[in-house]
Amino acid sequence: MRLATRPGAGPDGELIVVSDDGTRAAASPRWPNLLAAIGDWAAAEGDLRALAASVEAGQGEPFDAGTLRAPLPRSWQWLDGSAFSTHGELMQVAFGTAPIETDKPLMYQGMSDRFYGPHDPVPFPDEAHGIDFEGEFGVVVDAVPMGISAADALGHIRLIVQINDWSLRALAVPEMKTGFGWVQAKPACSMAPFAVTPDALGDAWHDGRVRLNLAIEWNGAAFGHANGSEMQYGFHDLVAHAAATRDLVAGTIIGSGTVANRGYAEVGSSCISERRAIEMIAHGAPSTGFMKFGDRVRMAAIQPDGARPFGAIDQVVVRR
Amino acid sequence: MRLATRPGAGPDGELIVVSDDGTRAAASPRWPNLLAAIGDWAAAEGDLRALAASVEAGQGEPFDAGTLRAPLPRSWQWLDGSAFSTHGELMQVAFGTAPIETDKPLMYQGMSDRFYGPHDPVPFPDEAHGIDFEGEFGVVVDAVPMGISAADALGHIRLIVQINDWSLRALAVPEMKTGFGWVQAKPACSMAPFAVTPDALGDAWHDGRVRLNLAIEWNGAAFGHANGSEMQYGFHDLVAHAAATRDLVAGTIIGSGTVANRGYAEVGSSCISERRAIEMIAHGAPSTGFMKFGDRVRMAAIQPDGARPFGAIDQVVVRR
Repeated sequence: MRLATRPGAGPDGELIVVSDDGTRAAASPRWPNLLAAIGDWAAAEGDLRALAASVEAGQGEPFDAGTLRAPLPRSWQWLDGSAFSTHGELMQVAFGTAPIETDKPLMYQGMSDRFYGPHDPVPFPDEAHGIDFEGEFGVVVDAVPMGISAADALGHIRLIVQINDWSLRALAVPEMKTGFGWVQAKPACSMAPFAVTPDALGDAWHDGRVRLNLAIEWNGAAFGHANGSEMQYGFHDLVAHAAATRDLVAGTIIGSGTVANRGYAEVGSSCISERRAIEMIAHGAPSTGFMKFGDRVRMAAIQPDGARPFGAIDQVVVRR
Repeated sequence: MRLATRPGAGPDGELIVVSDDGTRAAASPRWPNLLAAIGDWAAAEGDLRALAASVEAGQGEPFDAGTLRAPLPRSWQWLDGSAFSTHGELMQVAFGTAPIETDKPLMYQGMSDRFYGPHDPVPFPDEAHGIDFEGEFGVVVDAVPMGISAADALGHIRLIVQINDWSLRALAVPEMKTGFGWVQAKPACSMAPFAVTPDALGDAWHDGRVRLNLAIEWNGAAFGHANGSEMQYGFHDLVAHAAATRDLVAGTIIGSGTVANRGYAEVGSSCISERRAIEMIAHGAPSTGFMKFGDRVRMAAIQPDGARPFGAIDQVVVRR
């Protein structure tokens, strides 16, 4: 099942159920927006799956894919992991920081009151902040009780999403060194248009990981197509980590961190900082700069048959 | 003007306007909860102040102070500073960490989907996590545009609140050392019952600081009465820091960090870790342990005339 949000009454937009071929959609009479639906998923899922079946059977109408918002234009909680160890290793090079010693998943809490839609222009105040994208996968959970095991957490993963975790690199290292995590360096993220149920990914959803290539283009040039399979921890581990000392509110979004592969020489990267680190390793200094106003980034996970289950993020960076 | 939230329809509760003497209250016919009101404060403030005047004139009814919830039982964003330099210095001793080098305010993003009410029992999974309280002040802003100056930020501070930022100290240092900030070490906070407008504090609201003593009792014994005046940065500076690269959503709560004074030998502390650090400085080792299940903490800011503008947090720690 594929869900999306189109402009509608209020900041949460209007939930629609989208056909598998992405050509038709229908709104639910009972569930006005996705935040409401995920808040009562036991009741909502059946209604929405019945609606999805009717859309597959020919009901529904064409919709304007160009104006879709983030599936969750806002939510109560966004916790972003950093579960690809290759990303961590390269960021140590990029940031000039020591290896992080921990036996737990890495995770920070970021802003969740706004997620940009897939085609929204994204405003930043200053190119000198080192504007970077981070291609990620994420999951949306229903209510998760404190202390849950990773095995039980898997069943609370209701939707999978694709995220661009915008990052301001020049602000990141000083904030990281305080130990308090990132505030200024992590403004609002963007989301691809479709949130999908795990079953919709078939074999590509395995062991709490999204085994798909995340194709990224920067200003029309291929930048990377790393696969989501190499997470050191699965999403169920990340959910359990997040819930160790708190109940997770329904609608909590948990991110994978930047998708990265050991074979980066072949597959490229999902953020500019990694490419810069690879350049530093090879040549002693980075040769790629960060994004400029007017730059475009496109991100879409691709199935072996060429389908894009989350649709695509395709957006431009603008001066605030 | 004093606002509170009593149990009511839905997770946001019901907003009430409370008389200055705290004996009577009235609900607004137009503003069902505080999150809705702060989201449209330009319209809500006049309505609520008119209601407050009628309550002062004798309208309204007695209310059950024992069941009040947090003024904001949930909000879209909670950004907690650490603006008392004495707290920072003592926490370096408690944590055995190096001084933090930064020329900006310290701030992390914490969970905002739940704030415990002032009398709610607070569940934790394990005493071994080092359960600690942190007495703080906080402010609630309406919508703040990205890039605002500290001077302009002052006018967006619409309400002042009193917060207990629950902290799990055994989990805090490992998380801090990752640079990602705290997730497991910072579960949900608690709030005192009354949110007040800045004018309601009179001279005690000065230069973006709350010049009141925060009286704290642990299991009935006086623990501290540090004054809020010694913030290295005022709340307007914290708001501007938070808004440097993001718009702040209406209802964002910004915390002061643990209230601490240079004269801690006389005034005591607002968290157990500070007391332990003071013991370490004096005797080489801490003698005070962290909280046990069943322990009670009481926190109330006190005006010179003895009044408690935010009411009191008075709650017990329980086993999850």
